[in-house]
Amino acid sequence: MQDSLTSSAKRRTIISVDAMGGDRGPAAVVAGIALSAKENPDIGFILHGPKDELERLMARKKVLEGRVEVRHASGIVTMDDKPSHIVRHGRETSMWSALESVRSGEAAVCVSCGNTGALMALSMLRLRKLEGVNRPAIAVLWPSRNPQGFNVMLDVGADIRADEHDLLQYALMGASYARNGMQLEIPRVGLLNVGTEEHKGRAELKLAHDLIAQNAERGKYRFVGFVEGGDIPGDTADVIVTDGFTGNTALKTGEGTAKLIGDLLKEAFKFSPLSRLASVLAYTSMQRLKKRIDPRRVNGGVFLGLNGTVVKSHGSADATGVSAAVKLAFQLAHSGFAERLAARVALVEQSKADAPTDKGTTA
Amino acid sequence: MQDSLTSSAKRRTIISVDAMGGDRGPAAVVAGIALSAKENPDIGFILHGPKDELERLMARKKVLEGRVEVRHASGIVTMDDKPSHIVRHGRETSMWSALESVRSGEAAVCVSCGNTGALMALSMLRLRKLEGVNRPAIAVLWPSRNPQGFNVMLDVGADIRADEHDLLQYALMGASYARNGMQLEIPRVGLLNVGTEEHKGRAELKLAHDLIAQNAERGKYRFVGFVEGGDIPGDTADVIVTDGFTGNTALKTGEGTAKLIGDLLKEAFKFSPLSRLASVLAYTSMQRLKKRIDPRRVNGGVFLGLNGTVVKSHGSADATGVSAAVKLAFQLAHSGFAERLAARVALVEQSKADAPTDKGTTA
Repeated sequence: MQDSLTSSAKRRTIISVDAMGGDRGPAAVVAGIALSAKENPDIGFILHGPKDELERLMARKKVLEGRVEVRHASGIVTMDDKPSHIVRHGRETSMWSALESVRSGEAAVCVSCGNTGALMALSMLRLRKLEGVNRPAIAVLWPSRNPQGFNVMLDVGADIRADEHDLLQYALMGASYARNGMQLEIPRVGLLNVGTEEHKGRAELKLAHDLIAQNAERGKYRFVGFVEGGDIPGDTADVIVTDGFTGNTALKTGEGTAKLIGDLLKEAFKFSPLSRLASVLAYTSMQRLKKRIDPRRVNGGVFLGLNGTVVKSHGSADATGVSAAVKLAFQLAHSGFAERLAARVALVEQSKADAPTDKGTTA
Repeated sequence: MQDSLTSSAKRRTIISVDAMGGDRGPAAVVAGIALSAKENPDIGFILHGPKDELERLMARKKVLEGRVEVRHASGIVTMDDKPSHIVRHGRETSMWSALESVRSGEAAVCVSCGNTGALMALSMLRLRKLEGVNRPAIAVLWPSRNPQGFNVMLDVGADIRADEHDLLQYALMGASYARNGMQLEIPRVGLLNVGTEEHKGRAELKLAHDLIAQNAERGKYRFVGFVEGGDIPGDTADVIVTDGFTGNTALKTGEGTAKLIGDLLKEAFKFSPLSRLASVLAYTSMQRLKKRIDPRRVNGGVFLGLNGTVVKSHGSADATGVSAAVKLAFQLAHSGFAERLAARVALVEQSKADAPTDKGTTA
């Protein structure tokens, strides 16, 4: 298997995949990469986890033959592991190993379904922050009324704080992500705030507003100013910039609300013989709707602001979910996203050095 | 009409209603109070707005005869008016007049569909903050998996900041609201935070955690500790405490997500002849679901922490919405909510004076 990988790797984009730590175990991950391999002949994989188990799972998938190199790792990061513990003692884990392939340059992007906190902590440790970035961020795709069907929101929980400079970097990184991941030439960027006009507003948001506005041309985005929570699933902006505390709360509230409605909808369809019949008739339409707002379809928070790209797949991702994360990883790798993002951040950093745009001039 | 009101007012609970400023105008408000009057013989109204117009609208509603006193007010607060402008120049408006009836003690609770910012600013000015309350809050009911079908969340936008003492007061006020508005003897209170355990967390949240825990008995609630965005529509807590920035964002994100799903659902049902037939068959079940999560059914943010209770109805409220807000207002008036809340806040303030629980001991 290794031999055939070596010979064909040149034309393939290699994705490093952590096979362990997701709720459904390595079988879902192997099934997911098999789906991706079938769909896209240009992807190759380095798969990290217990060698014997992975090879047994892969044996059943013809499509993976010659496409996967297995890297043995005996340890698993569980959902309950503390990030600080993994940073100190996680050297033998599949997560660590998966990041190592990106660090070494063998793979372009890393995909993992594991513990978010641990993955971020390890990513910071092993990949290091991008030059000029103070706080990396996690960006997610959010079902919206936009033509592309999704908005980018960041940060959704890499950090709980963000000052005006961090928020500017989120704008740059989010715009770069939207351009390379969603093919939007000039993404519209909005800064999350609350609507009531006259109160004083958080000071850092006013400063961030000015900074993001000033750097629109350099960052190749259009700044639409302040947006509200209702604009996250809306069509006002393509990129929603906020701090990780607010973003994480919004993300989980939105997910929880969607889940509640979904469950109530199921109950409603079960209520009477008529509604049960209706549910049969509406099946195709409902599946289409489900697909439209299914988190598995847009599976993958992306860690931005590191030397390398990491796609965090949902912990409960099944084969479809893993395959969606791999697709996103491929797209980002293929577009040279990491290099473009780094160049964009550097450009703004450079302009700061040339003509300071920080507190002295924006306050 | 005035005469009959005087004679029957003694046994009636009087609600002061701002007829103007909602998106659907005074006709929706008059239709709404007529619905309420029909359902509940124990409500009387003071209705504020242009006398001629209101009397013309009321003439068609037999059920309102002898139940409504009209207070003429020529001015209207529009949705675009700046709160600071209304505070300075709003003396002739129906909103000002509606609050005046609560201030004077003629009515127990004020209901308005108007501009939230202006209503809060006027409420602060005319009713004044409750002794011991630093920041009043807006509480909303949120569709959830709880047996009662709703959670209380506050603050959703009265202020954008809250320190640990404010958050404690939100816990007290929210618990009091849940007890009096939802008949929960010992409400469960949760403090909104983000899940990733180990990062430092916002300092005020750690302090608030301790303060809220310490005052559980005095406040007559059970503290369940930190909760996440996903718990807002969940069944972990009955009262979700957070600052107005986070709460407002969560509220609008949740509303926006629900609206998006609803619209996509409608599209899905229109997609094919089969799905159109399904939508006919599922009609009753869908209406039931809609009712369950319909904001009009739980219409009314409640302003807490003032000398008097103000129910802010949704700007787009129709007759059903207005009637739901009046029902809530009646329930709160009837249970002596304002006095109970004041007593609860005073109790904790008193305990602070007796044995300081502030920074010195909790840090």
